[in-house]
Amino acid sequence: MPNSIPATIPNDSIGIVSPETHHFAQAITLECGRTLPEFDLIYETYGELNNNKSNAILICHALSGDQHVAGYNSKEDKKPGWWNAYVGPGKPFDTNKFFIICANNLGGCKGSTGPMSINPDTGKPYGGDFPIVTVKDWVYSQALLADVLGIEKFVAVIGGSLGGMQALQWAIDYPERIAHSIVIAAAPKLSAQNIGFNEVARQAISSDPDFHNGHYYEYNVIPRRGIKLARMLGHITYLSDESMRAKFGRELREGKINFNFDTEFQVESYLRYQGESFVDKFDANTYLLMTKALDYFDPAKEHNDNLAEALSNAKARFLVVSFTSDWRFAPERSREIVKALLDTNKSVTYSEITANQGHDAFLIPNKDYQDVLYSYMQHVEDSVK
Amino acid sequence: MPNSIPATIPNDSIGIVSPETHHFAQAITLECGRTLPEFDLIYETYGELNNNKSNAILICHALSGDQHVAGYNSKEDKKPGWWNAYVGPGKPFDTNKFFIICANNLGGCKGSTGPMSINPDTGKPYGGDFPIVTVKDWVYSQALLADVLGIEKFVAVIGGSLGGMQALQWAIDYPERIAHSIVIAAAPKLSAQNIGFNEVARQAISSDPDFHNGHYYEYNVIPRRGIKLARMLGHITYLSDESMRAKFGRELREGKINFNFDTEFQVESYLRYQGESFVDKFDANTYLLMTKALDYFDPAKEHNDNLAEALSNAKARFLVVSFTSDWRFAPERSREIVKALLDTNKSVTYSEITANQGHDAFLIPNKDYQDVLYSYMQHVEDSVK
Repeated sequence: MPNSIPATIPNDSIGIVSPETHHFAQAITLECGRTLPEFDLIYETYGELNNNKSNAILICHALSGDQHVAGYNSKEDKKPGWWNAYVGPGKPFDTNKFFIICANNLGGCKGSTGPMSINPDTGKPYGGDFPIVTVKDWVYSQALLADVLGIEKFVAVIGGSLGGMQALQWAIDYPERIAHSIVIAAAPKLSAQNIGFNEVARQAISSDPDFHNGHYYEYNVIPRRGIKLARMLGHITYLSDESMRAKFGRELREGKINFNFDTEFQVESYLRYQGESFVDKFDANTYLLMTKALDYFDPAKEHNDNLAEALSNAKARFLVVSFTSDWRFAPERSREIVKALLDTNKSVTYSEITANQGHDAFLIPNKDYQDVLYSYMQHVEDSVK
Repeated sequence: MPNSIPATIPNDSIGIVSPETHHFAQAITLECGRTLPEFDLIYETYGELNNNKSNAILICHALSGDQHVAGYNSKEDKKPGWWNAYVGPGKPFDTNKFFIICANNLGGCKGSTGPMSINPDTGKPYGGDFPIVTVKDWVYSQALLADVLGIEKFVAVIGGSLGGMQALQWAIDYPERIAHSIVIAAAPKLSAQNIGFNEVARQAISSDPDFHNGHYYEYNVIPRRGIKLARMLGHITYLSDESMRAKFGRELREGKINFNFDTEFQVESYLRYQGESFVDKFDANTYLLMTKALDYFDPAKEHNDNLAEALSNAKARFLVVSFTSDWRFAPERSREIVKALLDTNKSVTYSEITANQGHDAFLIPNKDYQDVLYSYMQHVEDSVK
């Protein structure tokens, strides 16, 4: 909830925000067949819910994202939430108009029940025993949270990357509860190459001697090497060859080659830094779970691999957005979604944004992208009236 | 040298071949400034050197390649050398016509002096103390081997990937000693993305607790986890998204999702197998050195980043070959080489082969590729006459 905005926080920011946690005293049965006897979801909200609760938007986060989408959690925060550029007063997802919610996904490490939480059966953290969670599970738990908040129907469910998959799954699983689905930089399912990269990241973590089958908390260690490698590798796939070339080229840290294995090229330094700084910010077990949810996502699977059929009951209108230089989930993957939607006669707007930042482009300010979101959200707003 | 061919070995194979080793009692000073007091080069040769020693071809190997290009080292060998499809009697690099040499590069792990060799100063393996070697060092050592064999000038120097970089460096460093340079699936220098992937592989190896700063031989261990991860990652970059899709799709090993971290998708199983089987075949220190040689390769650097100027003294004719689906060293990278050669008025033939196997395409039988090599080698043969 916004408080007074200190001088250092920009005017277009939602300001200081705090998360809330809802404890679900009920059990939840997951797609894998296992049950959590009780669970928490931590979430942030921005803007005001109107009287008839018809202006709610759900934002779904991606692999390493969390509930902190916009604003600052304290005056000391150096950075705002991960989508601050697009969420706030007067921004495309306008907190003056909409009530915006984002929850940390089940299996997460930012406050929702996950591997770091205490397993009531053992009194110890779940660790490696936490069940595998899926996009469908997340959507289900988000729907339970909507029930708690009294929100019958979302104006829009929105997400980028793994978040976009949730936006798509929402349209399939709750056709009556979502008016618009905004699917950004996503894919209808991972390719073998995508799964391959995830598998290398998982192997890096699980082969780290400090992993202890996911029960490293009990040993007071972190599989630092593994999570660092996973993040370094991830980073390469989030950027484009072009953006890395523009950002680092072959620049040498000391202006010359030193013929040793220290960091010599700027890109090495950047990746090592990104890897190192992730270690203490993110939980390795959560990373494993998120990559599995990505690998498993394949809504067409139970419809004979026919995505159009999987989407046939959806009632939402769709905005699908891709970025030219995204090679993790390339524009062709978004076009697969668009084609399936058209094949089953859905309303879909598609925008392919020219951007050189690769997959990361969905998080970065970009005029064209902003214009597309503004324009579509105007359409959404009109549909609410 | 070919012997009799057993019944199980195909007729178009060079048959059973054995490597030879030349011990250089002389010191060699490397580009890094360090000196090896003496060194060995192991090499294989196929075909017969003619009387005026004018029919010699040098093949240079890539990252995980070695001197065993074609034929079989024993009747028990299940697989022939790494370029057997292109080297042999009647093949594009025709052993009935040419005398073909390939040496294991310095720093290698297949018999040439490298990290596993005894450091005469300490009586122990060099391990992590082996000096960083460069493409230029390899070319220099290959020229010393040519001297030993009495070969003044190569008809052609040929290589794919890191081997192609050697073929290019030969044209620069020894303009009088090479008539044709055949540069396949290479790049004039690595991009930041290429370096990034190499850095992840290096970090995987060097952060493995069994690495011991490269002195793991003394501990009777191998940094298995690290080298396995490096190879898994490498493999993804050698294949194309398209070929992985064709080869594995999203096929599940047991036909269903099991909601655990075992290998579920075929691509996971493939990558783990490739990683595991590499551990005992290749040395981790050599892997580190090879990736560094790749990162450092940049012949334009000492010519104000002007590749045309770097190539201006070359006297060879060039064949440059790329593959459409190669994203490690994409066709654009080969075209940079072609453009530089044209800018400095060299004779260059360029062929972009349609192939869906990614970077690996340079090793795989392909009619168009074969035709291009046949045709160019006919031209080479005519130039020898």
